[in-house]
Amino acid sequence: MSFHASVVTLYPEMFPGPLGMSLAGRALSRDDWRLETVHIREFGLGRHRMVDDTPSGGGAGMVLRADVLAQAIDAAAPAGDPRPRLLMSPRGRPLHQSRVRELAAGPGVVIVCGRFEGVDERVIEARGLEEVSIGDYVLSGGEIAALTLLDAVVRLLPGVMGNEISGETESFEGNLLEHPHYTRPVSWEGREIPPILASGDHGRIAKWRHAEAERLTRERRPDLLERPAAEREG
Amino acid sequence: MSFHASVVTLYPEMFPGPLGMSLAGRALSRDDWRLETVHIREFGLGRHRMVDDTPSGGGAGMVLRADVLAQAIDAAAPAGDPRPRLLMSPRGRPLHQSRVRELAAGPGVVIVCGRFEGVDERVIEARGLEEVSIGDYVLSGGEIAALTLLDAVVRLLPGVMGNEISGETESFEGNLLEHPHYTRPVSWEGREIPPILASGDHGRIAKWRHAEAERLTRERRPDLLERPAAEREG
Repeated sequence: MSFHASVVTLYPEMFPGPLGMSLAGRALSRDDWRLETVHIREFGLGRHRMVDDTPSGGGAGMVLRADVLAQAIDAAAPAGDPRPRLLMSPRGRPLHQSRVRELAAGPGVVIVCGRFEGVDERVIEARGLEEVSIGDYVLSGGEIAALTLLDAVVRLLPGVMGNEISGETESFEGNLLEHPHYTRPVSWEGREIPPILASGDHGRIAKWRHAEAERLTRERRPDLLERPAAEREG
Repeated sequence: MSFHASVVTLYPEMFPGPLGMSLAGRALSRDDWRLETVHIREFGLGRHRMVDDTPSGGGAGMVLRADVLAQAIDAAAPAGDPRPRLLMSPRGRPLHQSRVRELAAGPGVVIVCGRFEGVDERVIEARGLEEVSIGDYVLSGGEIAALTLLDAVVRLLPGVMGNEISGETESFEGNLLEHPHYTRPVSWEGREIPPILASGDHGRIAKWRHAEAERLTRERRPDLLERPAAEREG
């Protein structure tokens, strides 16, 4: 059984979108992972297939109805489906590479994409949705957040990246940012590749790269060095 | 002059993708913003249009060449172009809603999408690229990160969201997560809307919502409450 992603959305036409191309797209064609969408509109009420209503207590925007959304979620993941159910939301726990790895090691994922002002809180509780945030900014809906999460997960699935992945030196492995990269030409616009990289001394090169990764992390993201060990290990 | 986004990429077919639909797509049709792509491959070397080479000093993966990428960037943004030049990269400064607002208030943005193991460090320095990270996870390339950033920016452009945006109560405005939302039906699967929301007392409702936003932020993201004032104000 390959990794199975189900996306509950008002914009099924956004999928697979960019995930239908490049490495993720080729993996999708090979059935290395599966993607299906459930259109919330199909569970809408009345002739106009209404999915939202005004916020209780007043205020701007519209809120996705609990009853409608729950039916769509149940269609994507009937009771007993072992996959985690995520709600993409800026209120959620920030996504980290360690959670990406956990998801990639599991059977798949059910992703609910919010829109409008938000979703009725009761469906989050009743369907056990895990709120996940991809970052501290606001998107027009959960769809692009879902694409982001899936891209991060899919590239870790067996066979997807082939030799293009280099686990050891990736960002956030060991909680360090990546060291600088260089390639030919050796001299470009008066800028040279650091001579140590041409030394052929692999021990010294590895040390230099590690020192550079530490320097960059200290300069840009000292918070990463202070993470708890559990998150560091991932 | 409307907001002008230029994306430098090896996958121009990924754009506008999801940004061609929904609110961002309608705004694109209305010329509320403009999007163009520059294909790095067009500046590749030789018959095979080579854009990358092996990393200096050894290691897995391939590195985007400085000379090729610089030509593509120069085609997207000639010297004197006032737009900020961003490189989507997990090594970058984490994107925050305050930076999104700054970008939305400006003339546009040039976004360079990395692929493979990374890009030659010298092009980052020589072309003054600002490294921006959308979160602490690794993607297969910068394209979906670019879509994410553009979605966040475009929804803030004049006229794009219309009445659907509610600035006051959005996540990260005032550095609080959003309060819970409810809508009809009042009772669903034995779960009721909090009675205060039906009270009609707008003062008490506003207080309740603020208290809930503070409670959620304290529980889930105490780090937001500790942010420096500059970032809080955005």
